[in-house]
Amino acid sequence: MNIALLPGDGIGPEVIAQAVKVVNAVAKKFGHTITFKEAITGAAAIDAVGNPYPDSTHEVCVASDAVLFGAIGHPKFDNDPSAKVRPEQGLLEMRKKLGLFSNVRPTFTFPSLLHKSPLKKERIEGTDLVFLRELTGGIYFGEPRGRNEQGTKAFDTCVYSVEEIERLARMGFEFAMKRRKLLTCVDKANVLATSRLWRETVQRLAPEYPEVTVEYEFVDAVAMRLVQWPKAYDVLITENLFGDILTDEASVISGSMGLMPSASIGLKTKLFEPIHGSYPQAAGKDIANPLAAVLSASMMFEYAFDLMDEAKAISDVVNLSLEKGVVTEDLSEGEKSYKTSEVGDWLA
Amino acid sequence: MNIALLPGDGIGPEVIAQAVKVVNAVAKKFGHTITFKEAITGAAAIDAVGNPYPDSTHEVCVASDAVLFGAIGHPKFDNDPSAKVRPEQGLLEMRKKLGLFSNVRPTFTFPSLLHKSPLKKERIEGTDLVFLRELTGGIYFGEPRGRNEQGTKAFDTCVYSVEEIERLARMGFEFAMKRRKLLTCVDKANVLATSRLWRETVQRLAPEYPEVTVEYEFVDAVAMRLVQWPKAYDVLITENLFGDILTDEASVISGSMGLMPSASIGLKTKLFEPIHGSYPQAAGKDIANPLAAVLSASMMFEYAFDLMDEAKAISDVVNLSLEKGVVTEDLSEGEKSYKTSEVGDWLA
Ligand SMILES: CC(C)[C@H](C(=O)O)[C@@H](O)C(=O)O
Ligand SMILES: CC(C)[C@H](C(=O)O)[C@@H](O)C(=O)O
Repeated sequence: MNIALLPGDGIGPEVIAQAVKVVNAVAKKFGHTITFKEAITGAAAIDAVGNPYPDSTHEVCVASDAVLFGAIGHPKFDNDPSAKVRPEQGLLEMRKKLGLFSNVRPTFTFPSLLHKSPLKKERIEGTDLVFLRELTGGIYFGEPRGRNEQGTKAFDTCVYSVEEIERLARMGFEFAMKRRKLLTCVDKANVLATSRLWRETVQRLAPEYPEVTVEYEFVDAVAMRLVQWPKAYDVLITENLFGDILTDEASVISGSMGLMPSASIGLKTKLFEPIHGSYPQAAGKDIANPLAAVLSASMMFEYAFDLMDEAKAISDVVNLSLEKGVVTEDLSEGEKSYKTSEVGDWLA
Repeated sequence: MNIALLPGDGIGPEVIAQAVKVVNAVAKKFGHTITFKEAITGAAAIDAVGNPYPDSTHEVCVASDAVLFGAIGHPKFDNDPSAKVRPEQGLLEMRKKLGLFSNVRPTFTFPSLLHKSPLKKERIEGTDLVFLRELTGGIYFGEPRGRNEQGTKAFDTCVYSVEEIERLARMGFEFAMKRRKLLTCVDKANVLATSRLWRETVQRLAPEYPEVTVEYEFVDAVAMRLVQWPKAYDVLITENLFGDILTDEASVISGSMGLMPSASIGLKTKLFEPIHGSYPQAAGKDIANPLAAVLSASMMFEYAFDLMDEAKAISDVVNLSLEKGVVTEDLSEGEKSYKTSEVGDWLA
């Protein structure tokens, strides 16, 4: 197994280091040979070579079976969205070049953390949903985009092909088949031409998956119902921008945002990433919560290597750490807390 | 005062009828002369004349000082988003033709209804925010939109001019000046060219309003923070599609979604509308909650006629009805409940 490590910025390196410890422990226990190759990305790569996703990094990713990604972003870029080179550009370029078309974002609850949610316990207990967000199309990449000559008008273009929609939708149906068999297609088909193509494509595929119940819901309605009753959802598929907004919204309902992992399934490789950002305030202090990165490694064993026992060994030990209180200060609530590296050692 | 009445579909006619009772009572008490003119819209207008926003209705609106709008939408159109004539088209055409560029959507809490929220009380108590959603531009109206010849690709265009952004942003600054002086510009400036123009335009205007603190926040971050800590916001300005999603999300946090009014400020008139939909299941049963429509009438006195005492008389009596339990069954919680028309009579 060739794993590319892209620690990135802020707390990225610290949390990825813990994931590596856990992956190594799993490899030892289950008898796998793992080769890690590290590469630069994000603000760190801008500082080093002036490019947030250099070709050398791309080559490491393409040669890998899976990428473990930390986080990118640095405050020095935050208040200047039109800066020529920005860490986010590297992220978008990486997604596009690796063909990472499906971003898999589960939202689930940890019994011991329900009280952390802004939502009432009875609303969220047992929530178990997963978003498949289309990640390489839509308004993120569509052309033309820019300004008119006088600079008095700006425009962006949202484009989707049947092919792009179909591969994401098929993955949605397949996820649903392995889960509770409910698929929600999130769109704005009452307004957008692209959404109507999404809906038609999903409607065309549905008869191939007769066991799956398909719901079509407008993005604004989902933004409401996610807060009102997240348990109603199983698998949700949606386009890039809607997915950006709704997966972030969904991540706070469980109260465990700092713990949520993600996977991006691609044509050239698969990428696994904690959904929290680079959290620069905590960088270098050995206090960041490594559980989302570690759970991303669990997703890696499941989605990149189809090794379910290995995946479960990791999620089990994460649950155990929560039960036993071997957690970083963000979760310790006045009890003893542990350093990032200590949690990693304990899990490993 | 010339008021156009567009009751529309579903429960629209019932709740607008209560708003009219209350407006008449206020007119009598404060000595105003009010002329109502009713016109058709939505599915009702499609059935009658094959057009959800006929010219005759547009003329009534243009001649009005304010429009009281109920709701539009009918289930027979729901599963066929590509039907040739749809109620929503009427809505979009009305917004465009009346130049209703700013949709004002407050979210606030009623002390007696806090327990209805899916969020914990301490998170929402005292929430008082208002969105200004741009309503006549962006991807809702941009050209080109449609399909390629073979039908294998669909596209939509998001367009904004400096002018469109500036008039909405100025209204945002003015709202902030009258409130807690915090303005949040919601965009996706790390990805979209249109968002960068939004941000630049707001940055250019900011020095004219030195008392206002301006924050710039990405739409995905706002989707999270709205659920985590809605009290952090005062006035939020945003483009059409982001506003569609976020205002609906915001409407559930207070637990009083069924009670939230809205105003749309236009070039040719101003329109006032409860944010709940046409709720067809309840139509004709005299059970729909009329408070959002009545509060929309309160907003009408404030925003269309600058009559604050009249506006306050209405919001005060709504608060009284909640305190006294003169409410429809959705709010009665096992206590005696009242019919839509009875609540309207009591308020009047
Ligand atoms: C940083 C930004 C470009 C990115 C996105 O919008 O996709 C982020 O919000 C995400 O969801 O990974
Ligand atoms: C019905 C639909 C076209 C409309 C919109 O998207 O603007 C609605 O969701 C709203 O917010 O008024």
